[in-house]
Amino acid sequence: MKRTVFFISDGTGITAEALGNALLTQFEGIEFDRVLLPYIDTIDKARATLERIHKANNNDGVRPIIFDTIVNKEIREFIRTGDGFPIDIFETFLSPLEQELGHSSSYSVGKSHSIDEENRYKGRIDAVHFAMDNDDGALTKNYDKADIILVGVSRCGKTPTCIYMALQYGLCAANYPLTEEDMKEGIIHLPKFLENNKHKLFGLTIDAENLSNIRNERRANSRYASLAQCEMEVDLVEELFIRFDIPYINSTYFSIEEISAKILDITGIERKN
Amino acid sequence: MKRTVFFISDGTGITAEALGNALLTQFEGIEFDRVLLPYIDTIDKARATLERIHKANNNDGVRPIIFDTIVNKEIREFIRTGDGFPIDIFETFLSPLEQELGHSSSYSVGKSHSIDEENRYKGRIDAVHFAMDNDDGALTKNYDKADIILVGVSRCGKTPTCIYMALQYGLCAANYPLTEEDMKEGIIHLPKFLENNKHKLFGLTIDAENLSNIRNERRANSRYASLAQCEMEVDLVEELFIRFDIPYINSTYFSIEEISAKILDITGIERKN
Repeated sequence: MKRTVFFISDGTGITAEALGNALLTQFEGIEFDRVLLPYIDTIDKARATLERIHKANNNDGVRPIIFDTIVNKEIREFIRTGDGFPIDIFETFLSPLEQELGHSSSYSVGKSHSIDEENRYKGRIDAVHFAMDNDDGALTKNYDKADIILVGVSRCGKTPTCIYMALQYGLCAANYPLTEEDMKEGIIHLPKFLENNKHKLFGLTIDAENLSNIRNERRANSRYASLAQCEMEVDLVEELFIRFDIPYINSTYFSIEEISAKILDITGIERKN
Repeated sequence: MKRTVFFISDGTGITAEALGNALLTQFEGIEFDRVLLPYIDTIDKARATLERIHKANNNDGVRPIIFDTIVNKEIREFIRTGDGFPIDIFETFLSPLEQELGHSSSYSVGKSHSIDEENRYKGRIDAVHFAMDNDDGALTKNYDKADIILVGVSRCGKTPTCIYMALQYGLCAANYPLTEEDMKEGIIHLPKFLENNKHKLFGLTIDAENLSNIRNERRANSRYASLAQCEMEVDLVEELFIRFDIPYINSTYFSIEEISAKILDITGIERKN
């Protein structure tokens, strides 16, 4: 059975979507067809939205689920007149929060951002630029400015994790790939600029088979992608992490969101945004 | 008055945080002190959490707000015994959803990801690598694989917007900076590889004064950062957008989340994750 789900907002719809998806994950065996509708901020757009909801209702033979964070009351109530099953996120929580905080909410469309919010935002954007500039061992001289430096073999997930930590947490995250150049006589020699920043290092490892699959997508049938090579590199890197007491995670079974949250949890580094 | 807010989860805490921040934004004039506590998945960790909540209560002189998405019932109920004002996101919405869907939720910790979810995840990670590789006009030969190509002057917000679209929507987003090299005789000549992909182009512009401030942080007092230079570049780029009928947004007053959502809305490009 297919069930259409709408995420509707007069803003970006990011919150409606994040919450909705987290809730839907709890329902296995139901196939959801997801539709994101941001910036529904006029009655005309709301009317077109009701039409889409109506069509989904007819096609599915069952009413769609609606997750919404519409601040504008008129539009919110208009959407309520349609065929969907509404989950109103703001209305559900804002009223008890207003009571607890003894403060009425602004609950208004297009509220300008506060200075505090703007500074946190700027920090995140600066961190994204830092992560881009310091990807893949590009600028090791910047490591004194880094909040964290991820190390691991090529293609174990360092880059997207750094990007995520920058975007989500505002952290200046650099990463350095440990390659054959660092491996000599069956051991990895930690480069000087990493040893000088040992307290900032965090390791990523990965199952060799998984690594080989990922590398094969990039360079099929190369020595770089061979299982033997991947096993050798992973073994050496894990030995390094233990020898230098570098905390590490195996990225094979976690998403970058999970890896990032675990890194913060393990290191105690505080988010900046 | 300061008020401490805890985001608590036995997972990453991302949903609790996203929803909590969206709600708090509606309350101006209250200073919130935000604490993210992910992976509270044992009674021992829950006990330490209650201790932190208790301390915040004493320090602030008012009970903290708790946004939680704790799936484990025992831990959830244990957290409820503390001093905080609880906003229980899952409990509030899962029960009505179970009724509507005629299906009980799994509501269990550490549920493995579905194949569908894993494929969407892989698409997002691939898109992040694409955005990294195709930043700043690096690989124009890849433009046939791009879902969208952002164009604009240097430092107008192209890079973080591309990264966000990749991470959030799984879109292969490239970007190309329009520089003085493309500007001749008071006009911008659109490079051939861009003209061949004209339907994928989306423009970003920015207020010249804001651009000058941003560039000054990078290269203080340079010609590159001067207001005159910024004004000239912005004028030429906006003229180009109009001449080639390229849709565009002024990034000055929007976050990358807002810009990305607007781009999807304007172009009708469908997210891939």
